[in-house]
Amino acid sequence: MKKTNIAILGCGTVGGGVAKILLELKKDLDIKSGSQINLTKIVELLPQAASKKFDIPINYFCGNGSDLTKEQADNHINEIINSKEIDIVVETIGGTGDYLYNTIINLLNSKKHIITANKAMLAERGKAIYETAKKNNVTINYEAAVCGAIPIIKAIKESFTGDEIISISGIMNGTSNYILTKMTKESLSFKEALKLAQSKGYAEADPTLDINGFDAGHKLAIIIKLAYGIDVDFNKLLKTGIDKIDKEDIDLAMEMDCIIKLICFAEKKDNNIYTEVTPMMVKNDNILSKVDGSTNAILLNNRYSGRHMMMGKGAGSLETASSIVADIVFTARYSSNQIEPVAANNHQILDLKHYTFPFCIIFTTEDIPGITGLVTTAIGNQNINIDTVSHNRHGKEKALFSIEVMPCTYNQIYESIKEIRQKKPDVLLKLPKIIPILY
Amino acid sequence: MKKTNIAILGCGTVGGGVAKILLELKKDLDIKSGSQINLTKIVELLPQAASKKFDIPINYFCGNGSDLTKEQADNHINEIINSKEIDIVVETIGGTGDYLYNTIINLLNSKKHIITANKAMLAERGKAIYETAKKNNVTINYEAAVCGAIPIIKAIKESFTGDEIISISGIMNGTSNYILTKMTKESLSFKEALKLAQSKGYAEADPTLDINGFDAGHKLAIIIKLAYGIDVDFNKLLKTGIDKIDKEDIDLAMEMDCIIKLICFAEKKDNNIYTEVTPMMVKNDNILSKVDGSTNAILLNNRYSGRHMMMGKGAGSLETASSIVADIVFTARYSSNQIEPVAANNHQILDLKHYTFPFCIIFTTEDIPGITGLVTTAIGNQNINIDTVSHNRHGKEKALFSIEVMPCTYNQIYESIKEIRQKKPDVLLKLPKIIPILY
Repeated sequence: MKKTNIAILGCGTVGGGVAKILLELKKDLDIKSGSQINLTKIVELLPQAASKKFDIPINYFCGNGSDLTKEQADNHINEIINSKEIDIVVETIGGTGDYLYNTIINLLNSKKHIITANKAMLAERGKAIYETAKKNNVTINYEAAVCGAIPIIKAIKESFTGDEIISISGIMNGTSNYILTKMTKESLSFKEALKLAQSKGYAEADPTLDINGFDAGHKLAIIIKLAYGIDVDFNKLLKTGIDKIDKEDIDLAMEMDCIIKLICFAEKKDNNIYTEVTPMMVKNDNILSKVDGSTNAILLNNRYSGRHMMMGKGAGSLETASSIVADIVFTARYSSNQIEPVAANNHQILDLKHYTFPFCIIFTTEDIPGITGLVTTAIGNQNINIDTVSHNRHGKEKALFSIEVMPCTYNQIYESIKEIRQKKPDVLLKLPKIIPILY
Repeated sequence: MKKTNIAILGCGTVGGGVAKILLELKKDLDIKSGSQINLTKIVELLPQAASKKFDIPINYFCGNGSDLTKEQADNHINEIINSKEIDIVVETIGGTGDYLYNTIINLLNSKKHIITANKAMLAERGKAIYETAKKNNVTINYEAAVCGAIPIIKAIKESFTGDEIISISGIMNGTSNYILTKMTKESLSFKEALKLAQSKGYAEADPTLDINGFDAGHKLAIIIKLAYGIDVDFNKLLKTGIDKIDKEDIDLAMEMDCIIKLICFAEKKDNNIYTEVTPMMVKNDNILSKVDGSTNAILLNNRYSGRHMMMGKGAGSLETASSIVADIVFTARYSSNQIEPVAANNHQILDLKHYTFPFCIIFTTEDIPGITGLVTTAIGNQNINIDTVSHNRHGKEKALFSIEVMPCTYNQIYESIKEIRQKKPDVLLKLPKIIPILY
């Protein structure tokens, strides 16, 4: 039987899970891959802790189980790069730094297949990595990088190749979704919900990347590359997080039979891909509205096969590790053929500012008569059809209300806001919030 | 560039869709497969109609576009069997008859890769087909056979290979789900809902296989083979359809925060696979409860990665065809390696009669005092914990109520029914309905 030897770089939350599964399922994995899947080496700075936590015999670790300096670890990694025994390297170190980037490039150049969960690296510096893999006729697989255990990468690479993906809308950041769920179902404020997410271990001590939409953006960029063949310039991808969403927005959404979710959105129209990470109001009859807590889900709308939804755990040690192990099995089984099934690239990327969408516009105004007429007239003057105007919430010093409009562009809305300001300069107490509605 | 030549047998609803997509997406398919995907021949008795319906140039059809006798069609199929040009044969004739079975075997023996949507054939006669493919080092792919466009086959074969599938619960028959949805949401009777399903084209003129759970059973059998390596004896697989479900059951389910769905269920425990097709009460917080109309969905519970849900169109011409085309792309790309990634077979199959489950038991009794005490005592005497007893619906000549019990076996329930009958022989006006509850 063919042998496939595996090295793991970094034995933390995900890498440790990979080692554990490789040992626990060894017999099954051999059968499913038609190859002996051998865990051969693990490079980890603190092997004792990892060994204990994941129940991995210490002899699997480079350096006889003693803690490694960075220099020692580097030497072991170089040995792996130069080894002729290792077939697949699992990269679970993380980050986008030059050292790791160069390590990945060197591994590919020495004909190692790579499997990684490193979404940030692929989204920000993936182009050269994919090209190096192709040049060397080896594969880089990364199912675990997007929504952990949900097999969305394989679905796009292999299951929907007989179709055309028209649009993608996904809940791809578990922390944001957990916070929004708590705000919606338990009326917590953003700050309270964030604190709870941190105490439950969903959010990091520094939750910036989750909250500002960057983590979701990494995943969206990877998916766009696969679905539409485009290398997204990550800096240019528009990302709005959930940090501006407050309880009033959530209330207004519910009144409209909606729930606010952070959505990774991409839609193909002609040769353009309209894309953005942004909070959206998701209609209650859209199945994404039912995706609660830290769960992830992706809804695809395909030309021939219509709507598909995939839902599951988007993070977690063994959840993510199981995806990596599936990639190991696949790589061991099919490594002879390296055609990367990405779509043809004949599109350009645009954000939703260039697109028509139904929107909810939330106004905070002075509480004086005539406001509704002023606002709705200005909207009508931009040829925007109004669907619903919510009941005015009269406060002491302000009024709050929302307007649901039929598909239009952001620009049309900006123009109507400009008109309101021209007619009554002080009437808008805040910049109105403009939130797309997802049906 | 490598060439992959395709023949299609049968150009009806699905086969016609395949031809259409192969022609429309040709450029994309070539890129994604790294191979020229050439539609070469179509064998169809009535080519004119198919050509018109699916916009396929008539020259693709064997016999220069004239209608074929069965003998002529047979000759063309034999030419394909003997051809050295054809790489992949798409079988979209359907049925489980000997002629088609022998054709498939002959095609495999002549080294053709097969792609099919024929769930009945695979579920009832698949074993010899899989073995013949393996012996000849060719593949048989059948993503389209289970839930149309939902990539559940690939998910089990390739995405969850780094995991262990603990349980499967699926809504795999669109017609049944459509009927149950109409009964639930619009209070239709079973007969009214069936009539509506037929008028909308969801149910066939003879809806037997949809209604009696056999179609769902075909899909379940195929999935069990992949997930647990077992060739299911289709005749022995327990299949209960939805034809016994009436409005009162639906009402009682709603009162229990449930909705009745036809569920394809399989759960692994020790070395047993407990499996059955049966209506279940699905709790409202189980995402399957949100799957309405003719949509299909499968919920997997995995050892490492937890719960996954995949939802989409389970039938339809282009929906099913798109799955077949994806299999064509995959076969063209990876056909060099034939390891069938089915799980190791070290399990035996059991139906739910051998398993513990929470149940809803629906009693129709005489309307006299003391019934609740009699029934609940008998249940308690079998060591069954009662969760809820519904309000009694008192009628003129009967009382109707349901009891929700904690996990127990069917046998425990049967024993308590026996006790009730012994104590008061005529009190039960009907055999109580025993419906599993799915959390």
